[in-house]
Amino acid sequence: MKVDHVRDYVVQSLGYALNPRSIAVVGASQNPTKVGHKVVEELRDWGYQGELYPVNPKGEPILGLQTYRRLQDIPCDVDLAFISLPALKVEDALHDAVEKGCKVAVVSSSAFKEVGRGDLQDELTVYCREHKLPLIGPNLVGLGNPYRSFNCGFLPYLPLKGPVGMISQSGSNLLAALGTSQREHYGISFFVGLGNKADVDFSEFVAYADQDPNTKCIAMYMEGLDSPEAFEEACSKTHKPVVVLKVGRSQIGAKAAMAHTASENNASTPGFCDQLFRRCGVLRATTWQEFLDMSLALGHYPSGLKGDHVVMITNGGGSGILSCDHFERKGMPLCELREMSPTLVEKMREAMPSFGSPLNPVDISGTATPEMYEKAFTCAMEDPNVHGILGSICPTAVTNVPAITDAAIRVYEAHKDQGKAFIMECQGGQECQEAIIRLRDHGIPAYATAEQAVNGMVALYDYSKILAEKQSR
Amino acid sequence: MKVDHVRDYVVQSLGYALNPRSIAVVGASQNPTKVGHKVVEELRDWGYQGELYPVNPKGEPILGLQTYRRLQDIPCDVDLAFISLPALKVEDALHDAVEKGCKVAVVSSSAFKEVGRGDLQDELTVYCREHKLPLIGPNLVGLGNPYRSFNCGFLPYLPLKGPVGMISQSGSNLLAALGTSQREHYGISFFVGLGNKADVDFSEFVAYADQDPNTKCIAMYMEGLDSPEAFEEACSKTHKPVVVLKVGRSQIGAKAAMAHTASENNASTPGFCDQLFRRCGVLRATTWQEFLDMSLALGHYPSGLKGDHVVMITNGGGSGILSCDHFERKGMPLCELREMSPTLVEKMREAMPSFGSPLNPVDISGTATPEMYEKAFTCAMEDPNVHGILGSICPTAVTNVPAITDAAIRVYEAHKDQGKAFIMECQGGQECQEAIIRLRDHGIPAYATAEQAVNGMVALYDYSKILAEKQSR
Repeated sequence: MKVDHVRDYVVQSLGYALNPRSIAVVGASQNPTKVGHKVVEELRDWGYQGELYPVNPKGEPILGLQTYRRLQDIPCDVDLAFISLPALKVEDALHDAVEKGCKVAVVSSSAFKEVGRGDLQDELTVYCREHKLPLIGPNLVGLGNPYRSFNCGFLPYLPLKGPVGMISQSGSNLLAALGTSQREHYGISFFVGLGNKADVDFSEFVAYADQDPNTKCIAMYMEGLDSPEAFEEACSKTHKPVVVLKVGRSQIGAKAAMAHTASENNASTPGFCDQLFRRCGVLRATTWQEFLDMSLALGHYPSGLKGDHVVMITNGGGSGILSCDHFERKGMPLCELREMSPTLVEKMREAMPSFGSPLNPVDISGTATPEMYEKAFTCAMEDPNVHGILGSICPTAVTNVPAITDAAIRVYEAHKDQGKAFIMECQGGQECQEAIIRLRDHGIPAYATAEQAVNGMVALYDYSKILAEKQSR
Repeated sequence: MKVDHVRDYVVQSLGYALNPRSIAVVGASQNPTKVGHKVVEELRDWGYQGELYPVNPKGEPILGLQTYRRLQDIPCDVDLAFISLPALKVEDALHDAVEKGCKVAVVSSSAFKEVGRGDLQDELTVYCREHKLPLIGPNLVGLGNPYRSFNCGFLPYLPLKGPVGMISQSGSNLLAALGTSQREHYGISFFVGLGNKADVDFSEFVAYADQDPNTKCIAMYMEGLDSPEAFEEACSKTHKPVVVLKVGRSQIGAKAAMAHTASENNASTPGFCDQLFRRCGVLRATTWQEFLDMSLALGHYPSGLKGDHVVMITNGGGSGILSCDHFERKGMPLCELREMSPTLVEKMREAMPSFGSPLNPVDISGTATPEMYEKAFTCAMEDPNVHGILGSICPTAVTNVPAITDAAIRVYEAHKDQGKAFIMECQGGQECQEAIIRLRDHGIPAYATAEQAVNGMVALYDYSKILAEKQSR
């Protein structure tokens, strides 16, 4: 339900939602297949350190925890009331949460607006707003914060700690991001599935993320935008990069979005979101992969790129050409090395065998050693005319991928204070996957294909332009 | 160097190049860091079953194998002469190969046209053509055939057996494909790096692939096309789908392509390749990932899709909407279920809980069981109005990914004779990666993102249109 402005009381409460000192699970169940069981189990198993109170009318212990018949029976304060009940029972639980003085309510139950029960959903929203109890959901998969070992919902993964705040209107896509985090070390600062976003919408999570010290980049998957004014307000104000994947462009996709999270896109004319996003400085991703690629790079380099002088250093001509083409497709063609820095050309020649190529991409040849990589990376890092470095590893039978990874990490560590963007690409087999994970663990955005790495670098450049525009206002 | 037509003697010899009974490695070395050592070592280590003859002027044994001073000293027939010598010594080795009666010469040595020695390279080509000794390379990384445990070159991986014939002008990108094969079970029938393609070019490999029983789809990474007429001839004639990733569209990329594999793109006007590819029925990929996605699907469904009635079945609304949008972006919007088959709507309702959605995508809900998936897949498989099925798994905490994977494999096995396209998407963590690998091992194209799966399905549809056009000629 629409809001006109970002509400301060909601933003404050979201601090409790994502860093709760105590949680009550209303609808906790002894049945291990129920959400109300899973939630309690996963909070415990992922290591949640706060107080945990199952609530169930039977009052029987669940997973060894003392269970309460009603929220009001809990003898201590409750920050977060997680409600997993049949739709028609949610209203009573919200009354209890208000009475108990909970800071925030999270409703996972479905069968509201997405199945035609818009009135019921709206009633809950009005009630919660009257009583200043922020409501997250309903029809949501969960939320959490890896910095607090806090994983609350229907979620099989707790992501790795990292810089991206992930706000998703879709549970399944949130899960995809969390799964990618587990598998490929895409680092996340907090995550939330908005579900039907009856009350709390994107805008207030953006305002919360703006204040959250762990969040460096705000990433949103969006099906419908109920409150464009509040969204514009929040995104215009934030000092952090914002990347949005807005879906429902297709006709059948818009219908599916309605059935999925009751998202109405009918009102927005074509181009409405593009214009809105441009006005408030939001970067728009097209595909899911691009969304992850852009937000990862921006999470590590939240001040973007100082200019468009990117040097690519590779041992594989093919990865270089794929990158050139993609840079140009994305509107940021690579400059030649001699145009950006004639002295760099000479220094690069010293870092490569005679049959290498000091164009840009700098091709240090298929036989490149870790020492050559280190020298080439260092030259580029130390040249004041270079704004970003894209390193690429294409393993031949003589390529020492772990040693080149070490070299990249050493150069990054030695120069990271200057904030020059350093992005890596490793295309190949298992050892490349391991290199990507190790690089990410050291704070270097690393990718498996040339185009993904370019998506990351171009996002930094595009964000710099947004920053400059924001600052000139 | 240009050819006007596909040469039959070359196509015949490529059978020996990719299924050699005996190999001589000219320039074999005792020094384990040299290509001439790696080649022998890897042929042996990957299990090559044919005869292997190192050739080295010193004649000392290499890796325990008897070594010959000259090619002519080998007492048996040699199918493939692999030449790894300094550029200026290659000509003599080719003379020896002609004298010995080798079927084909593969030259890995670099420092030819890519460093300005075009004349030297042309001399070799003219000599080989006069003597009908097909020359693959120079400046190439290797070639191989997993169906023969044959891995010949500078390559750290032997790919998994599968349907895609991979012809790459770039070594590093060939390695990326082989690494992906190792890591994600992208199946390959044969592979070759063309390098500078002084003599043998894409066209004759296409003609070979057309005859190769293991190859179901022909995939090519291309930097420059020297012989467009022969290419058009080969692609027009083949009965197999052809996917090409043609790079060098960017100005700086074209320069890099020249430095890399001496590829000249200057002569081709913008749109030249698009027109050529359209005329001869070649599908064009834009990014590396799309190239792999398309070729994988076509490798498993080389007769394409009978129509555009694709049903998507998912437990995650989000993956469904990403797919809808991407189908529409790719020019193949999804139809609604009731438009393609009213009876299917009713059958699908029976396969899902009441809060599921029988639109298209069919959202069988986040709590979907393996039984629901199996029923939904089977309904779609058995409905004659459905041409393709896109199944999607988005794991929540209650999703049994291995059991759903089993269900998908069962349905596929029970119906595979009818050739209806069945593609899977699994978005999430490690268990999804394992599911993708297991599905691929059973012959089902499976992907990690919605857009990748859609790229696969749309490629099938686009190829059907090409097939229809070819047949109507």
